[in-house]
Amino acid sequence: MKNKIKSSIFDIKDLVVPGENEQIVVGGRDKFEIAIEALKKANIKKIGVIGWGSQGPAQSQNLKDSLDNTDIEVTIGLRKGSSSWDKVEEVGLKVDEMYKVLSESDLNILLISDAAQADNYKEIFKNLKSGSTLGLSHGFLLGHLQNVGDKFPDDINIIGVCPKGMGPSVRRLYEQGKEVNGAGINSSFAVEKDIDGKATDIALAWSILIGSPYIFKTTLEDEFKSDIYGERSILLGAVHGMVEALYQKRTVEEDEKDVYRETVVNITGPISRKISKEGIESIFKEFEGNDVFYKSLNASYKECYPLLEEIYDEVSSGNEIRGVILAGRRKQIFVPELIDKTPMWRVGEVVRKSKDNGDNYEIVAETSGFYVGVMMAQIDVLKKNKHSWSEIVNESIIEAVDSLNPYMHARGIDYMVDNCSRTARLGSRKWGPRFRACIEVAIYDVKYDEFDIELIDRLRNHDVHSALKSCGELRPSVDIFVE
Amino acid sequence: MKNKIKSSIFDIKDLVVPGENEQIVVGGRDKFEIAIEALKKANIKKIGVIGWGSQGPAQSQNLKDSLDNTDIEVTIGLRKGSSSWDKVEEVGLKVDEMYKVLSESDLNILLISDAAQADNYKEIFKNLKSGSTLGLSHGFLLGHLQNVGDKFPDDINIIGVCPKGMGPSVRRLYEQGKEVNGAGINSSFAVEKDIDGKATDIALAWSILIGSPYIFKTTLEDEFKSDIYGERSILLGAVHGMVEALYQKRTVEEDEKDVYRETVVNITGPISRKISKEGIESIFKEFEGNDVFYKSLNASYKECYPLLEEIYDEVSSGNEIRGVILAGRRKQIFVPELIDKTPMWRVGEVVRKSKDNGDNYEIVAETSGFYVGVMMAQIDVLKKNKHSWSEIVNESIIEAVDSLNPYMHARGIDYMVDNCSRTARLGSRKWGPRFRACIEVAIYDVKYDEFDIELIDRLRNHDVHSALKSCGELRPSVDIFVE
Repeated sequence: MKNKIKSSIFDIKDLVVPGENEQIVVGGRDKFEIAIEALKKANIKKIGVIGWGSQGPAQSQNLKDSLDNTDIEVTIGLRKGSSSWDKVEEVGLKVDEMYKVLSESDLNILLISDAAQADNYKEIFKNLKSGSTLGLSHGFLLGHLQNVGDKFPDDINIIGVCPKGMGPSVRRLYEQGKEVNGAGINSSFAVEKDIDGKATDIALAWSILIGSPYIFKTTLEDEFKSDIYGERSILLGAVHGMVEALYQKRTVEEDEKDVYRETVVNITGPISRKISKEGIESIFKEFEGNDVFYKSLNASYKECYPLLEEIYDEVSSGNEIRGVILAGRRKQIFVPELIDKTPMWRVGEVVRKSKDNGDNYEIVAETSGFYVGVMMAQIDVLKKNKHSWSEIVNESIIEAVDSLNPYMHARGIDYMVDNCSRTARLGSRKWGPRFRACIEVAIYDVKYDEFDIELIDRLRNHDVHSALKSCGELRPSVDIFVE
Repeated sequence: MKNKIKSSIFDIKDLVVPGENEQIVVGGRDKFEIAIEALKKANIKKIGVIGWGSQGPAQSQNLKDSLDNTDIEVTIGLRKGSSSWDKVEEVGLKVDEMYKVLSESDLNILLISDAAQADNYKEIFKNLKSGSTLGLSHGFLLGHLQNVGDKFPDDINIIGVCPKGMGPSVRRLYEQGKEVNGAGINSSFAVEKDIDGKATDIALAWSILIGSPYIFKTTLEDEFKSDIYGERSILLGAVHGMVEALYQKRTVEEDEKDVYRETVVNITGPISRKISKEGIESIFKEFEGNDVFYKSLNASYKECYPLLEEIYDEVSSGNEIRGVILAGRRKQIFVPELIDKTPMWRVGEVVRKSKDNGDNYEIVAETSGFYVGVMMAQIDVLKKNKHSWSEIVNESIIEAVDSLNPYMHARGIDYMVDNCSRTARLGSRKWGPRFRACIEVAIYDVKYDEFDIELIDRLRNHDVHSALKSCGELRPSVDIFVE
């Protein structure tokens, strides 16, 4: 079993999914005590949280609350002169110069940006206490090290805990979890290097104490691959590109606002909610025997599958990470700078503010077909590359319908994209236009007047539906989305 | 001087361009004798031409004709069982198994595809005679070796001769050159490794004997960077993406065929011909004081310059070459497979066949502005990266207006793209959509209702205009374009 978890301290349960079962760890506030014990057993007295971006404020405040009444200290590490210094003190956390914190902590959680990690890792590694633990919330640095032929230090535990939600939701759901059972953002965890047999338990303790109800196992490599791939695909890039193609085709004949409501709004609102509540299979059920749905699904899947393979290759080979590093050195990092300049987004602003904003529409067959087609193709490429079901379902479905699409629904796609990490913002601009080009072929090529019934059946009966059900039972009991 | 040419045998003349003069070698049929002498002096008795793709048939037949009545042999090297074996024999050339030819030749000209070079270089290198010379017509292999951390063999001269035109035109203009003085395709040459002091003269002899009237100096690295960059930009990618954006904006109100004629046809026909005959500056003259031209030029330049920087980075870092290698291993190499499926291309087919095909239109201000904007931005990025004027002018202007655009004009953009190398076909699909996205911002962002007069002046008085004049005097005296 790829993701067998070895822990004598924590509760491990089986996640029943097609193929081999996966294992997960059950978190929850009732587990805080044993998590604290695990940290003590691993001699973690001082925790450094480096950075004050999005995850930094959330994870550090969660840890501070969880570790209240213990003698385990949490200190924020920032560059001297950082503009965030005061903000940290305002929320009652200790803050000190980052290399000092790094050198004094038993567990360092590195939450600075991907670019900052790539630029400063050598200095960071040099300052770590021998035998201490370095924690990451994203596998980007591993990808970068692979690209440049460098390694993590030999005398440090290297672990990952990757919350499946943006910083603000990690904090908000933790706070709600004080009242509401089951609230919290799930995480995945990884052990890249274990020098003392304690790395797994430190990682699990960390995830539990930041409030994760459930914790899935992954590797840093699988994490960066699926994460960077996902944001270039269904999570951001594909949605952005797809709607532009659909909108342009339909507005030749139809009213712009109608089209906007039946494409962009339909995806971020009604379709997302339906998938969130009842799974992708409910879309198939809804459109049983509907040729429009089948044609779009077939065309979208077939045209976009090769693109998704290309994206996966570019991510897993390290090319995308190389590109992100190169972009960070250019004068204008994002190209184009602004992504909401086409007529469609003008129309969108108007629709979003009006009473008739399309939020209560039925799901639209053609739009659903295109959206589900890309989602399923994304899933198939991840499965082919042997990612676990929990990771596939998170990166391809849950993060989209529970986290990102609701955000886009409320504020617009460009607003969402440009509140994500630099790596995500770059990826959306790079691949969105490719999805648009492929969806255009799906729309216009007459060969797609026919659909392949075998493909439709395979997608209808796909293993992902039961995997989603199993993982779905482990989702937070409150909305992830932050207004 | 970056490209100082050292040769005791050949005629070197100064190319007067802004900044430092560049040197070029004068070819011509009257130079065949000294070229043959140079080969003899370098003990080149057997020349192997490996591959029968596009350059292979052209260069080998040219060499065979030039070396008629000498005892220097030209032999084609092919894989056993290659389907081209008979074709080679039909034109009267000797052909043998490729590794045998490689091992017996004093000069091997490697004209197999980029992918085949990357896959087979180790075996190829192993079979070369110590002290022999290996010639390439593209720097791709160097880029690949840099990526994988490998090197050329130490005991071989490594040279490049890169004709500035497609295979068929290299042969056709050579044949025309028997009657017409000055016909022939110019080349650039490079010396990557010189083990015996003869590499330069072997390269120059090779270029002269395939019919190059003028030969510019470059390096294999500059060659692959400018070449792979150029095909992703103004030569293919940018044209493809730009016209889609222009077409979609204008067809909201105007007749589709009119729009097609004033955009796509205008670029590949009237605008190209005007630049070819009278230079980019003639476009500025034509639209002196024309705000529509200035606005489009300004918007296009400003939105696309950062994209061109990104493309240059991705090429020069080796990322694009990595991507090309990865693509070659995937089931569907080109994504999308077909690039002519949008409504615009349907309209284009009709227009191209009709009497009113737009070929005799005046140049259109808005279209000219967008096109020249990208061309000038491409030129500026190459200049910033210290490419020679001859290379800049070839990759950014001459190849476009004398070779590729006329081809597109006659047969359609997709037909052109898909007759190029795999590297070019991939690049066009990857970056065309990005140009479209940037040109859309250029079209729709209201900040471009104003233009920056300093930018317009700088572009009007740009050094490239005089560089183009100097290089233009060295162009073939017959049309490069093959019907």
